[in-house]
Amino acid sequence: MSELRQDPTTLDWVIIAKNRSKRPDEFKKNELKKIAINAYEETCPFCIGNEDKTPKAEAVYGDTNGKWNIRVVANKFSALTPDGNTKREEWKLFRKIHGYGRHEVIIETPLHNEFIPFMSDDHLKDFIIALRDRYHYLKKDPNIKIIIIFKNHGENAGTSLGHPHSQIVASPVVPPYIRRKFEVATQYFDNTGRSLHFDLQKAEIEDGTRIIDNNLNFVALHPFASHFPFETWIMPKIHKSSFGSISDNEINDLTGVLKGILLKLYKSLNDPDYNLIIHTAPVDDERKEYYLWHIEIIPRLTQVAGFELGSRITVNTALPEETAAFIRNFKI
Amino acid sequence: MSELRQDPTTLDWVIIAKNRSKRPDEFKKNELKKIAINAYEETCPFCIGNEDKTPKAEAVYGDTNGKWNIRVVANKFSALTPDGNTKREEWKLFRKIHGYGRHEVIIETPLHNEFIPFMSDDHLKDFIIALRDRYHYLKKDPNIKIIIIFKNHGENAGTSLGHPHSQIVASPVVPPYIRRKFEVATQYFDNTGRSLHFDLQKAEIEDGTRIIDNNLNFVALHPFASHFPFETWIMPKIHKSSFGSISDNEINDLTGVLKGILLKLYKSLNDPDYNLIIHTAPVDDERKEYYLWHIEIIPRLTQVAGFELGSRITVNTALPEETAAFIRNFKI
Repeated sequence: MSELRQDPTTLDWVIIAKNRSKRPDEFKKNELKKIAINAYEETCPFCIGNEDKTPKAEAVYGDTNGKWNIRVVANKFSALTPDGNTKREEWKLFRKIHGYGRHEVIIETPLHNEFIPFMSDDHLKDFIIALRDRYHYLKKDPNIKIIIIFKNHGENAGTSLGHPHSQIVASPVVPPYIRRKFEVATQYFDNTGRSLHFDLQKAEIEDGTRIIDNNLNFVALHPFASHFPFETWIMPKIHKSSFGSISDNEINDLTGVLKGILLKLYKSLNDPDYNLIIHTAPVDDERKEYYLWHIEIIPRLTQVAGFELGSRITVNTALPEETAAFIRNFKI
Repeated sequence: MSELRQDPTTLDWVIIAKNRSKRPDEFKKNELKKIAINAYEETCPFCIGNEDKTPKAEAVYGDTNGKWNIRVVANKFSALTPDGNTKREEWKLFRKIHGYGRHEVIIETPLHNEFIPFMSDDHLKDFIIALRDRYHYLKKDPNIKIIIIFKNHGENAGTSLGHPHSQIVASPVVPPYIRRKFEVATQYFDNTGRSLHFDLQKAEIEDGTRIIDNNLNFVALHPFASHFPFETWIMPKIHKSSFGSISDNEINDLTGVLKGILLKLYKSLNDPDYNLIIHTAPVDDERKEYYLWHIEIIPRLTQVAGFELGSRITVNTALPEETAAFIRNFKI
């Protein structure tokens, strides 16, 4: 017996496969393997002392006597680069644009083995401030239409470099996936005069079974139509379309929520690989009230297969109510 | 220097990352490992002689004296099952349906180690006929809105069972991804009076650089906006929306194309993990001329990461013109 649930923000469907479902702690994959990593690796381009192995810093945070906490550099293997133009070329049905844009790496720490849950609050605050600063810097370019901030932790999440880092891609095109999220939210606003994401947040809080953290400025939850086991959304309670509008006060609260969630995942599932994504409005849609910026954390515990690739319906082998209770009650 | 290319069938964008790109033969992952597998595994529920380990057969092909070539059974861990109804339940923004539908397994061969490229032509023909038969059987149920046929080959493609098999999911909902593909094709038809997929096929043939096989009834290619390295499309030349309409004559030609492509992938990339998906119109849209059924083969050579999850823009580290030339010229 399974259940089809619909993600109200995209209208995508999820099959919650109860008969295939595992208990939350069965997703624990291996013994904690990463604690033994050294603080410094000679060959790592992101370790302190190895700054000459990366392009020059675009920005540095916590700089004291040549030491730093956070360092922002262009990605050495940038997917997009700020040269040329964004003119479309077309032959018959083949449409292309030169790969214009930016691709930056935020080195989160000078230490090879300092993961987010173990950073000091001030350090983590600086990290979020750095992301906000880069967002504002990159959006100055009128060719940039959307800014995607993300983190790949672990090989199954698509990273080859173990040193803690995040990435920013500033893209000259808004993809249809994000257009559709905006359409769904706009339609809802036109029908009700209210924000879809805000109503969703209120409904999740009223229901309560999927909430894992809740403070003055943020609520964290495993959404009703979770596409993946332990998928986590962190939603702000003050309504803003753009991550760029996050206030210092909100950053304080976000720091605590983020650390708490990542520490619980680290301990309860033995440092799972995960992706973290900041969803934010396209740059030209920042003033619209229909959208709510938010963070999604996707642990990479299962493999997407042919059914998902063919339909974009995901099969989730965990009940979000059960995984949320497991994380909520997990004692650090 | 990279390039943004747009998939004309979905309007999704792909970053072709030339500076990160590998030569086609660099995607070869390991020594050929699977040839040493036994023809029979005692614990495998799909091997001949172990029929009691699966639900009873829904259909059998090539049955002679208790031997069979192809066996269709319900998936023991079905994501959807044909019980209950498809009534929607709703509370606030949470919408769900009982997991109604069908989930079948097509066991492609009695032998544990007989992959598609090594099957006889007649055996492979029976396999495609079996898929067509199941399609027609499953669509009789008026609650079924779309039928997804797919194959997961190898662990990275999401399978845990090594014995060659495919799967069919008959779903009571049409997902937004497929709705959008239809919208894009319908809009094109309304603007031009022609089929988008057919025009695309003609443009690919005229360009020629990405074609890997071409016979009377089918053309195979690495599409202009390939999302993944070695992504392969097999498109029919006779215009039909639904895979269910494939003729015996077309099946003959498809057999050859499919064997050839899978054999070249097997030999040139050392048996890569892959997904194979049959894209077909929703059951209620079969008569519409705007869509063209086709097959997609996605080798799982790279890992989807945070950027892809956040934007659905994919980064492809291979040039489809190069991979197509590599496969086209590969001597078996």
